[in-house]
Amino acid sequence: MRSSPHSERDPLEEVELESRSVYDGVLLKVRQDRVVLPDGAESVREYVCHPGAVVVIAVLPDGSLLFERQFRYPLRRAFLELPAGKIDAGEELLGCAQRELREETGYEAGAWLYVGVMHPCIGYSDERIEVFFARDLIHVGDALDDGEFLEVLSLQPQDAIAAIFDGRITDAKTITALFRAMPLLGWNIVPAETVPGV
Amino acid sequence: MRSSPHSERDPLEEVELESRSVYDGVLLKVRQDRVVLPDGAESVREYVCHPGAVVVIAVLPDGSLLFERQFRYPLRRAFLELPAGKIDAGEELLGCAQRELREETGYEAGAWLYVGVMHPCIGYSDERIEVFFARDLIHVGDALDDGEFLEVLSLQPQDAIAAIFDGRITDAKTITALFRAMPLLGWNIVPAETVPGV
Repeated sequence: MRSSPHSERDPLEEVELESRSVYDGVLLKVRQDRVVLPDGAESVREYVCHPGAVVVIAVLPDGSLLFERQFRYPLRRAFLELPAGKIDAGEELLGCAQRELREETGYEAGAWLYVGVMHPCIGYSDERIEVFFARDLIHVGDALDDGEFLEVLSLQPQDAIAAIFDGRITDAKTITALFRAMPLLGWNIVPAETVPGV
Repeated sequence: MRSSPHSERDPLEEVELESRSVYDGVLLKVRQDRVVLPDGAESVREYVCHPGAVVVIAVLPDGSLLFERQFRYPLRRAFLELPAGKIDAGEELLGCAQRELREETGYEAGAWLYVGVMHPCIGYSDERIEVFFARDLIHVGDALDDGEFLEVLSLQPQDAIAAIFDGRITDAKTITALFRAMPLLGWNIVPAETVPGV
């Protein structure tokens, strides 16, 4: 990277001098890099290396969305969140989304749409989360991973939106995915003055 | 925690048996805990310990919102994001929001409102991000931290919304904070059929 001409670089770019693995745990991998800052000074960057993940907005025939309640140990409580999971090595994105939906909720979908990507933790992780939209769901029974415990439930879009505003949903990937899917769910984000009666 | 009566527990709860620091780096701290799962089996949980952060939706007199373009080394590119930063030890949340806004953008705000909390990375970090809304901005000049480089810009709410849908904004904390702030910005999330002309 240091050999690229300066004129092609983002003026904010930080350039890698050296990268090394500093922690290789059961679940997390951390790297520590020496970098050159835009002013030529050196600094250190430390970050989690993540394989990427998918999150699925899955619409049931009654228009409600599949949610999960899952215990998230780092915060020592359960969260209301959309079905999601890590991408396995070599796995196609759509295949991962289909697998996670089936394994976690027991549903398969007749129609899939790729919505886009989000980045949950840009300060200290390279994780990306790919957002998928699924409809025409059929229940085929679930098959949770060993040691994975969760409750499956459904919420109408208006109830999910209300849960975001009243703080029952605080998971950023869930809120971000719902934002991106609003038009697909038949909801619009509009200036208040265009809403009749407001 | 093991002594709490079973009847009071979340049936999904994972209970700590042992917790130890496994990585204490320049920026990141990682813990690895042994836990008991709901079925009595043991497992391992690994997670980043984070002091928490704030993110600020700051409205300029023309109705546009302050944004930053900042290089995020883990993903090796710059992101369009709202002003944000880590909470210092012992710092009040509002004081942190005021400090980060001033240091990163050079603005002070005449009015502040606390919006709520989000969790960016519930799978492997205990980070929470507290969302603040700021208006009546006055430019007082900036004072970036040593080694911090960023560009300050502003976007009208409709342009920020468009940037989320076309993928120019993918940072989950920014999208989540904007979702929460929509009513404060005079935007509503409504079923498509209630919008005139749609």
